[in-house]
Amino acid sequence: MKAYNFLENHFKEISIINQISDILGWDKEVIMPIGSLSARIEQSSYLIKLAHEKICSSLINEKITEALEDMSSLNDWQKANLLEIKKIFDDYASVDNSLMREYSSLRQECEMVWRSARKNKSFIEVKPYFAKLLLAVRKIAAVKADYFKVSPYQALVNEYDSNRKVEEIDSIFSELKNFLPQFIEKVRSTQGEKPKLGGYFPIELQQQLGIEIMKDFGFDFNKGRLDTSTHPFCGGIPHDIRLTTRYDENDAFIALQGIIHETGHALYEKNLPLEYAYQPVGRNLGMAIHESQSLLTEMQIGRSDEFVEYLIPKLIKYFSVDKTKFSQDNIAKYVKYVEPSFIRVDADEVTYPLHVIMRYELEKQLIGGDLEVGDLPAAWNDYFRQTIGLTPDHDALGVLQDTHWYSGIFGYFPSYTLGAVTAAQLMNSIKKVIPEMNEQIRRGDLKPIYDWLKMNIHSKGKLFSSDQLLVNSTGESLNPRYFTEYLESKYVHG
Amino acid sequence: MKAYNFLENHFKEISIINQISDILGWDKEVIMPIGSLSARIEQSSYLIKLAHEKICSSLINEKITEALEDMSSLNDWQKANLLEIKKIFDDYASVDNSLMREYSSLRQECEMVWRSARKNKSFIEVKPYFAKLLLAVRKIAAVKADYFKVSPYQALVNEYDSNRKVEEIDSIFSELKNFLPQFIEKVRSTQGEKPKLGGYFPIELQQQLGIEIMKDFGFDFNKGRLDTSTHPFCGGIPHDIRLTTRYDENDAFIALQGIIHETGHALYEKNLPLEYAYQPVGRNLGMAIHESQSLLTEMQIGRSDEFVEYLIPKLIKYFSVDKTKFSQDNIAKYVKYVEPSFIRVDADEVTYPLHVIMRYELEKQLIGGDLEVGDLPAAWNDYFRQTIGLTPDHDALGVLQDTHWYSGIFGYFPSYTLGAVTAAQLMNSIKKVIPEMNEQIRRGDLKPIYDWLKMNIHSKGKLFSSDQLLVNSTGESLNPRYFTEYLESKYVHG
Repeated sequence: MKAYNFLENHFKEISIINQISDILGWDKEVIMPIGSLSARIEQSSYLIKLAHEKICSSLINEKITEALEDMSSLNDWQKANLLEIKKIFDDYASVDNSLMREYSSLRQECEMVWRSARKNKSFIEVKPYFAKLLLAVRKIAAVKADYFKVSPYQALVNEYDSNRKVEEIDSIFSELKNFLPQFIEKVRSTQGEKPKLGGYFPIELQQQLGIEIMKDFGFDFNKGRLDTSTHPFCGGIPHDIRLTTRYDENDAFIALQGIIHETGHALYEKNLPLEYAYQPVGRNLGMAIHESQSLLTEMQIGRSDEFVEYLIPKLIKYFSVDKTKFSQDNIAKYVKYVEPSFIRVDADEVTYPLHVIMRYELEKQLIGGDLEVGDLPAAWNDYFRQTIGLTPDHDALGVLQDTHWYSGIFGYFPSYTLGAVTAAQLMNSIKKVIPEMNEQIRRGDLKPIYDWLKMNIHSKGKLFSSDQLLVNSTGESLNPRYFTEYLESKYVHG
Repeated sequence: MKAYNFLENHFKEISIINQISDILGWDKEVIMPIGSLSARIEQSSYLIKLAHEKICSSLINEKITEALEDMSSLNDWQKANLLEIKKIFDDYASVDNSLMREYSSLRQECEMVWRSARKNKSFIEVKPYFAKLLLAVRKIAAVKADYFKVSPYQALVNEYDSNRKVEEIDSIFSELKNFLPQFIEKVRSTQGEKPKLGGYFPIELQQQLGIEIMKDFGFDFNKGRLDTSTHPFCGGIPHDIRLTTRYDENDAFIALQGIIHETGHALYEKNLPLEYAYQPVGRNLGMAIHESQSLLTEMQIGRSDEFVEYLIPKLIKYFSVDKTKFSQDNIAKYVKYVEPSFIRVDADEVTYPLHVIMRYELEKQLIGGDLEVGDLPAAWNDYFRQTIGLTPDHDALGVLQDTHWYSGIFGYFPSYTLGAVTAAQLMNSIKKVIPEMNEQIRRGDLKPIYDWLKMNIHSKGKLFSSDQLLVNSTGESLNPRYFTEYLESKYVHG
């Protein structure tokens, strides 16, 4: 136990450093004046360096070896924690520190240039920075591939969903690629016109409504906040979860759906096992499961007919709206409206997977060396035309829209759709356990759903792999059937 | 140079750690939900421990010795920086780490209990915690006294104004104690009734006015912010200065005077030498000089007749007020009104020094062992009755009003009045250099004053002692004559 206890203490320190980084990261997006960016970069880089030094030491390596030899003395949580600690050590040890520093500075630079390139709708501006960054990412992927004996792209995917094989993703995505185009046609041929709602929604009242709804979902404002930022996100730390959204005074649903989505992330973070809050095993299982929680909350619950029934009286209470337009039929149709569009983050849930699958296929080619940076905008536009049927007028509507690649993040995109597929599978199980669920949603009584999620998903931290967690809670591995069935029932039979 | 350069790099790291602490400290007061206090304490304590480890090492001690032997190769800034580094090292090395940890946990505990004790107006509640904390402070003062060969109280004062002798403070305060009571009588016998202003001041408009005025003073919102907190303060870091104030919808002057005061602090921080932003020599000279900047800004400028002339059109622009009440005479009288009261932070500038001198004398007795915790409330009330002529109804109006002692802070209080005295001396010099100053204030043209302060005070960082800085900029050491003359001219002849 001695070596294990040493590692627990040591990783608690690292966890505190990461928590500090998370608070500074939130502050950077929500609070910090832009003129202090360089000072903030100094601070964040210092914390990254500090965590790196604490993880990558020969002492830690020795203690891990020692603790692994004495594993029989550990309970299941401790065993899983030790394996997570080893995973973190290997992940850091696999890449040379100078390469990581190069990557870190290239990604910061590229992300800054990307911001202005997107504003100027000009891929050319960011191209040389992005090309250099991609080279560094390929190098990292190659050394990790070598270290872990996997393919380079798999090595990157492992950072976001550590047990998900690229072959499984291929198979799930290929099923969706077969299903979705025809399905979209079917929905669009029957759904009619998108309702025009109108109305004026003062931001302060939108905030109050958002807070009321967050509370109904179980968000604890004694340990969290709601703020405003350009892109909604869920930040902070387990004891202090900080959501953001953005507001449009002419459309209350933009802020609201952002809030509901991020509340799904927040409840996952809130319900993680607090007794392991400072240990790797107590953290979330990666982005695919995280997105499953936000999408279950936003899409499966938040855009259901039953939730609309709960929502309408609140909208009428907070805002002076035209009640004939804010009818059950109209709002239900509005929040479920399917319409191919350029921007992933604004896409409906039916076309959304196509946005993701495109990025997945393109980034696999970028990492594999089958696609070069100069050919990327054309490849994007061709693919988009073929699968979604639209051609972006300019790169800000296309290849420049997302920050991920320009921030050096590859292997993350599949998480969004794996999350949607997972959400459908979880919801299928929840409905069986709670037959009166729809009635509960109508009343805004969401506790039973989140109690189930807390017990089966949230409170497990990293005790199991995401697939094992699904087997434990739903009886089977990830299966896209539940997602397509869900879409059928909601958009065709619904 | 090699040892010195090593120390510069090392203390840059420490400075980054301190900057991170400062951002977390601001966040705690302004943003953080109370439920995450324990996590924040973990984070802050970790950063304190980290800085401590980085400072207190035998390697640093060796490098300091080595650099001191090679001082002739350094320029004046580097020499002063090295001496500051030595001072920091000695300050940390003088106290045993276990005693510091005991102090740190006692002060956090006592401060928490004090908050509720003040709410409940009950000194008894906090008494045992405060007694334990005071014992730890006495121990720290004793070991520092021994290490630095000064008296225990002097050792504590040195943390806030490192070259100010207790004997000088005694002499300055005794002059003020002789002067003020009769002076207050004189002012009060002629000033008449306090004007009643009335009016309603929406918070959002108060914020807009505050921002406009901050800009006129030279505050840079590209590198700073204005927010709200229970107690106004100036936090953040040199590149990111964050003021707070508090608002009362029935009195615009509460927020405004808070803003102007904190802007004085902010401009000092902003104008510190940026090339030494990450070195000890580039930081502020301690609390007495810091308060001189806030009081010069709030009192000497912000409550002058000329500033009132600048302010009134703005008040009329932002708020619908009764213009006959918002006249030059009325507002000037309102902001200069002298009236003994219980709460130090709300006191006028004439009675304020009496609040400070009382705390100074009591805390000297507490540290010296001449006064025990159980006798403190009675000692406070007796003293207050004798010097200010009022008896607090309960301890929240008396001994419980300030956080300092319950946070383990002793030796800080004299800074407020030393700051006021310094401000008067500086202003006396500025008036000689800028004869048209009053006319400039009327127009809101404050740049010449702050250019002088930047050149003579702010940009010098810790290059000189506070007294040397005064000699350089005003021709003499700290002299209370300028303060009493200023009061005479403003409140009797004004």
